[in-house]
Amino acid sequence: MRIDVLTLFPAMFDGVFSSSILGKARDKGLVALNTVNFRDYANNKHNTVDDYPYGGGGGMVLKAEPIFSAVEDVTAGLTAKPRVVLMCPQGEPFSQKKAEELSGEEHLIFICGHYEGYDERIREYLVTDELSIGDYVLTGGELPAMVIIDSVVRLLPGVLGNETSAVTDSFSTGLLEYPHYTRPPKFRDWEVPEVLISGHHGNIEAWRREQSLLRTWRKRPDLLKHVQLTPKEQRWLRELQAAEEKNTEK
Amino acid sequence: MRIDVLTLFPAMFDGVFSSSILGKARDKGLVALNTVNFRDYANNKHNTVDDYPYGGGGGMVLKAEPIFSAVEDVTAGLTAKPRVVLMCPQGEPFSQKKAEELSGEEHLIFICGHYEGYDERIREYLVTDELSIGDYVLTGGELPAMVIIDSVVRLLPGVLGNETSAVTDSFSTGLLEYPHYTRPPKFRDWEVPEVLISGHHGNIEAWRREQSLLRTWRKRPDLLKHVQLTPKEQRWLRELQAAEEKNTEK
Repeated sequence: MRIDVLTLFPAMFDGVFSSSILGKARDKGLVALNTVNFRDYANNKHNTVDDYPYGGGGGMVLKAEPIFSAVEDVTAGLTAKPRVVLMCPQGEPFSQKKAEELSGEEHLIFICGHYEGYDERIREYLVTDELSIGDYVLTGGELPAMVIIDSVVRLLPGVLGNETSAVTDSFSTGLLEYPHYTRPPKFRDWEVPEVLISGHHGNIEAWRREQSLLRTWRKRPDLLKHVQLTPKEQRWLRELQAAEEKNTEK
Repeated sequence: MRIDVLTLFPAMFDGVFSSSILGKARDKGLVALNTVNFRDYANNKHNTVDDYPYGGGGGMVLKAEPIFSAVEDVTAGLTAKPRVVLMCPQGEPFSQKKAEELSGEEHLIFICGHYEGYDERIREYLVTDELSIGDYVLTGGELPAMVIIDSVVRLLPGVLGNETSAVTDSFSTGLLEYPHYTRPPKFRDWEVPEVLISGHHGNIEAWRREQSLLRTWRKRPDLLKHVQLTPKEQRWLRELQAAEEKNTEK
């Protein structure tokens, strides 16, 4: 896979693209990660890439020309049609499903604005996807692009070895993870639950499932809708709910 | 504000902490940004910070001791009680409201795991907040920590000058942003809408409001529930809805 990032702050990407799993994926030749400073494509003597908005109002707007020129330069001579992803607070909410979809592409281009708006013609005639990583305000599209690139690259064949973690696996059950413990068995005053040291696999499995259910019910009850529960588990959660309501009434 | 980040990959933060708005905030002395490699607090000869989980299963678990020691070292001699934020896929979903809350603190500590789980005693006895930036899987907590730090620091007094953008402002109306255009008025075959060049402020305002409504209705109808609409706007959206349904039937 090839990934090009258009940004006014290429240095922001240095540490992230060369460390840890992204760095290793790059070293193994599994992904090519490039940054392109689209200021290099400014077509005026002051090297400006933004301008005042037509119709007035605060803020500046990124001009269409430098962004179109940068994308066209990056894709010159390539036959594969890239996905062109605009980082944008009003984009489609990014999801694991979208990460999987993007991981099947040969070439991704990310466009990162930075506290400016985008000239609408960029959205209309150049971009294939507009994505947002969440409903919070950031200073630019660079961090969201890194987040998406990280989530996509880790899905490429060969990138994750035996490093795939319990954290990751647990997502697939649809429930939040059960608690983990490692040595020492007693740290300060706090001991590891006895069941985990018992060696009784059936009991350990049962305890973990119960803890996952409990934690999901407490913190992210919205996730329970999508999970297959046994009749016994459903009854248990109803009892918890009833006990809770009773407590609240007091 | 002081921010300490506990991570095994401090180099990942270099570019982000020294560029753009975070870099400027740091240079102006508005925020102190430090990274701490908690491997330096490993208490064994192999410098390991993780170990196998009690009870079996895949993946490794971050040990309690090095994390506790690192946090205690960072806070030694300080009187202000810091918020200790664990980056974690099963944490509370991060939001703009949470960013505002955290921006009122004097000292934040972020703990970033990396494809391992955390020993539960870290969550129970050390951490004050568990946060997730979205329902997608990443290789570690470093990028989520950067996202949260960026959203918090930009809210500190003096950090954003006149750089606050239309993009940011638009969030406050509860609607998605209207389209922006800047020069040239004609780029390739694509012209700026006439109304924006008309100089008629009333018409421009009306066009922008309509475009915001239309875009929100198309892309994020969930946001419309929280917005005050005039009777005329409500009628218009109902008509759009009816036209859409008629089209789908054909």
